[in-house]
Amino acid sequence: MASLEFTLAQLAQLLGATLEGPADRRVSTLAKIEEAGPAAVAFLANPAYEPHIYTTQAGAVLVRTDFVPSKPTQAALLRVADPYSAFTKLLELADQYVNASLLGQEQPSYLAPGVTLPADAYLGAFAYVGPGAQLGAGVKIYPHAYIGAGVSVGPGTVIYAGAKVYHGVQIGARCIIHAGAVVGADGFGHAPQPDGSYRKIPQLGTVVLQDDVEVGANTVIDRATLGQTLVQQGVKLDNLIQIGHNATIGKHTVMAAQVGIAGSVQVGANSMFGGQAGVAGHMKLPDGLKVGAQAGIGNNIPAGVDTIIGSPAIDYKSYFRAYTVFRRLPDLDRRLDALEKRLKREAD
Amino acid sequence: MASLEFTLAQLAQLLGATLEGPADRRVSTLAKIEEAGPAAVAFLANPAYEPHIYTTQAGAVLVRTDFVPSKPTQAALLRVADPYSAFTKLLELADQYVNASLLGQEQPSYLAPGVTLPADAYLGAFAYVGPGAQLGAGVKIYPHAYIGAGVSVGPGTVIYAGAKVYHGVQIGARCIIHAGAVVGADGFGHAPQPDGSYRKIPQLGTVVLQDDVEVGANTVIDRATLGQTLVQQGVKLDNLIQIGHNATIGKHTVMAAQVGIAGSVQVGANSMFGGQAGVAGHMKLPDGLKVGAQAGIGNNIPAGVDTIIGSPAIDYKSYFRAYTVFRRLPDLDRRLDALEKRLKREAD
Amino acid sequence: MASLEFTLAQLAQLLGATLEGPADRRVSTLAKIEEAGPAAVAFLANPAYEPHIYTTQAGAVLVRTDFVPSKPTQAALLRVADPYSAFTKLLELADQYVNASLLGQEQPSYLAPGVTLPADAYLGAFAYVGPGAQLGAGVKIYPHAYIGAGVSVGPGTVIYAGAKVYHGVQIGARCIIHAGAVVGADGFGHAPQPDGSYRKIPQLGTVVLQDDVEVGANTVIDRATLGQTLVQQGVKLDNLIQIGHNATIGKHTVMAAQVGIAGSVQVGANSMFGGQAGVAGHMKLPDGLKVGAQAGIGNNIPAGVDTIIGSPAIDYKSYFRAYTVFRRLPDLDRRLDALEKRLKREAD
Repeated sequence: MASLEFTLAQLAQLLGATLEGPADRRVSTLAKIEEAGPAAVAFLANPAYEPHIYTTQAGAVLVRTDFVPSKPTQAALLRVADPYSAFTKLLELADQYVNASLLGQEQPSYLAPGVTLPADAYLGAFAYVGPGAQLGAGVKIYPHAYIGAGVSVGPGTVIYAGAKVYHGVQIGARCIIHAGAVVGADGFGHAPQPDGSYRKIPQLGTVVLQDDVEVGANTVIDRATLGQTLVQQGVKLDNLIQIGHNATIGKHTVMAAQVGIAGSVQVGANSMFGGQAGVAGHMKLPDGLKVGAQAGIGNNIPAGVDTIIGSPAIDYKSYFRAYTVFRRLPDLDRRLDALEKRLKREAD
Repeated sequence: MASLEFTLAQLAQLLGATLEGPADRRVSTLAKIEEAGPAAVAFLANPAYEPHIYTTQAGAVLVRTDFVPSKPTQAALLRVADPYSAFTKLLELADQYVNASLLGQEQPSYLAPGVTLPADAYLGAFAYVGPGAQLGAGVKIYPHAYIGAGVSVGPGTVIYAGAKVYHGVQIGARCIIHAGAVVGADGFGHAPQPDGSYRKIPQLGTVVLQDDVEVGANTVIDRATLGQTLVQQGVKLDNLIQIGHNATIGKHTVMAAQVGIAGSVQVGANSMFGGQAGVAGHMKLPDGLKVGAQAGIGNNIPAGVDTIIGSPAIDYKSYFRAYTVFRRLPDLDRRLDALEKRLKREAD
Repeated sequence: MASLEFTLAQLAQLLGATLEGPADRRVSTLAKIEEAGPAAVAFLANPAYEPHIYTTQAGAVLVRTDFVPSKPTQAALLRVADPYSAFTKLLELADQYVNASLLGQEQPSYLAPGVTLPADAYLGAFAYVGPGAQLGAGVKIYPHAYIGAGVSVGPGTVIYAGAKVYHGVQIGARCIIHAGAVVGADGFGHAPQPDGSYRKIPQLGTVVLQDDVEVGANTVIDRATLGQTLVQQGVKLDNLIQIGHNATIGKHTVMAAQVGIAGSVQVGANSMFGGQAGVAGHMKLPDGLKVGAQAGIGNNIPAGVDTIIGSPAIDYKSYFRAYTVFRRLPDLDRRLDALEKRLKREAD
């Protein structure tokens, strides 16, 4: 909750809770019940954690309306219908507070002539906004962020420290771009020449991030050769992911860290990728696909396939059954050998 | 083409094309024929795409000299001998324009005393150039780039936003270093101590990038312990690649995203690496090697080997043949079991 | 040694060496004996390298006290009890010198009101230090580094160019954070909603790096949901590594580049990870574990397991034995087929 501070009375009012404890006690952070200190609010939802409430250092604990402590507690009790939901409400409040308190233009920063910073936006020191960029209401642009020429950033989007957005990229509303992410670098295209060298194929397309996209730290999304690399609404990308040029990532797909999507791949909607999985260029994947960690996809996957893993990736049940036998391969080899020898003896 | 704008008459003159259409129509971008808008130039090379020319919104389309439309077209026609080559010429022109228009020193930026910016170079706001650095003619250094002490940057090289080049690194001519790339960070060397801790081995070597090298976004190339990590002429590295200390990457080798090359590896010339492949420390690889995606190389590879894949990597045909049987392993296991049982019954 | 320059007389005094050669010869760098130039000091420890001492261009070579050259040498000789140790001493001296010479606050830089820079510290141009941050004695913060609000940085820690440390992160003493590393970005937590979209779970915990931790270039360590992501004393992380939220990395563990550790994983102490290995969420690993390159760990590993590899990872000897048979699978398949046919013939 950073410097966000409440008295327990204020907190009770905010949550519609009944307070048992000192109304003027101040709390300023949120914690797990087993780790909480005196300035923290914790919660007790799972009865298995009840023993912690008698030993916790928390300033206050959110408990069910009907909770009956079997011993006295040092922590104040805030009684609510659903402690976990109330705690989540506090989490979101604290989270919003971190960015909400950032307002205005820190100096020195660079705002190209003609670009205006909306009144409720933040531009951190050393942030750079190039000519022709358009910034939506309430955008938060942290220090060292680079917004190239002609980039558009939708309302409510947060761009963390040192994220780099190349010229012409379009970013939707309520997106989150984490530190060090690079959006719109050149796609990897080089034409082989007769002498063995390569000639760069210019990359003149762009990247479009639709609304509610989250891009993890140091993740890279390349610009298209022509046209656009498209990340659809609600996609959540973890850290250190590669999205190649002209790829499309369908809406509400989530990818764990270090996934690699090559150029022109079409990833469906509502898919899930485990960490370090990879997809080769130009593959087409169906909606709702689940891709196991470290899977390597080198073929188009038809609709209806549910979960794949392995490299090359196959149906995950088939993979694990085969892998179980793989571990016994030296034994299979010996058994086969024994059978051959026996039949040879019998034949002799 | 950013703000680069031509009339069709100018374009016809530039390309030596014959124009059929309004001489004063203005175009300012390039696009695929099926996606082009009125301000775009597209091309028609493959006859399979001919139907698009009757429906395209493009302002003009490059067509073969002998193209005979079967219906009227809204787009102007620019007749040339080779539409794809002419289009590529426009792509390169547009690409060069993006950087050519960047000139001079934006403020605030940091140029150490004694370092001079050539007249046709660009230093973006918040870029940092340390003492003793040498900048070649026409270099373009984007905002937030860091050029450490004593770094040399060859003529025509472009260093994008937030790329970091540690002290003493040497960068050749016409290189491209994308955003967030780090060149010259310490190699990973730590000597184990009797108490289980590690003592850092100082990394005092450097990195040399020869001419025409491209380094992808957030790729990292470590400095040598002593001597140099060497990336030879014309090497093209995609994003998020790791090149360890004292490695050598032979000329005109290309690597897809997320490849990892450990320390002291010698990669040959004219090689190709698929995404997420890895090579263990000190391995020596031949020229012209093709490495499949996600391959793991833990042995030296002799000259003459062509294409490898798998982890550990083996000849790719052998790998795929073995993998085909791998998928049927539970069946093999059952068949072997059945044979054993049958022979046991017969023996009883 | 950058601009660090010694006469051989000074060097002899510094190392307690006996000098054979010109006392006023100046040297300013360190190199391998086979690559050294006239301004370099090299060493000869391994007798196999003796031939190089008669051809080296080095200004001076560290040799054993009892070394007897069989021919004249151009290089001066510096006789010491242990040439490699003496050379390491020079390496460390040179390494320290690079950072020791950086002092004070370059401008423009951003130090939030109330934050003080210790007298022997360095804050590079365009570095940003947020409100409430605490900087220890002798910290070196390079250009473009971002130190968020309330971050604490222990004495002697070096934060290289463009590293990003989010608000509230705690960094111990003598840590090294390389360029582009991101510490404290949001953990990857999103709750699926009934309509297929995801709702972000706020990440309000932090990251704690204990003393003597090294974080490689472009490596990312996510902040915890609640509580902390913990990197214990002496851990060494190479480049482009992912450490997920709420993970714990035990002390003196080393990880090669591109390793991925998912959320809530507990890695033991004194472990070693090969490059591109991955661990799935919530796994618990024992102390002293060795994980092979590209291994994928999807299960808890019990204490006592030594070395694992493969995906899913198993004991490495078992893996390589099985893989040896894997390569011969088409042959096994044919042999099994032959046996079946033979028995079928016999049965007919």
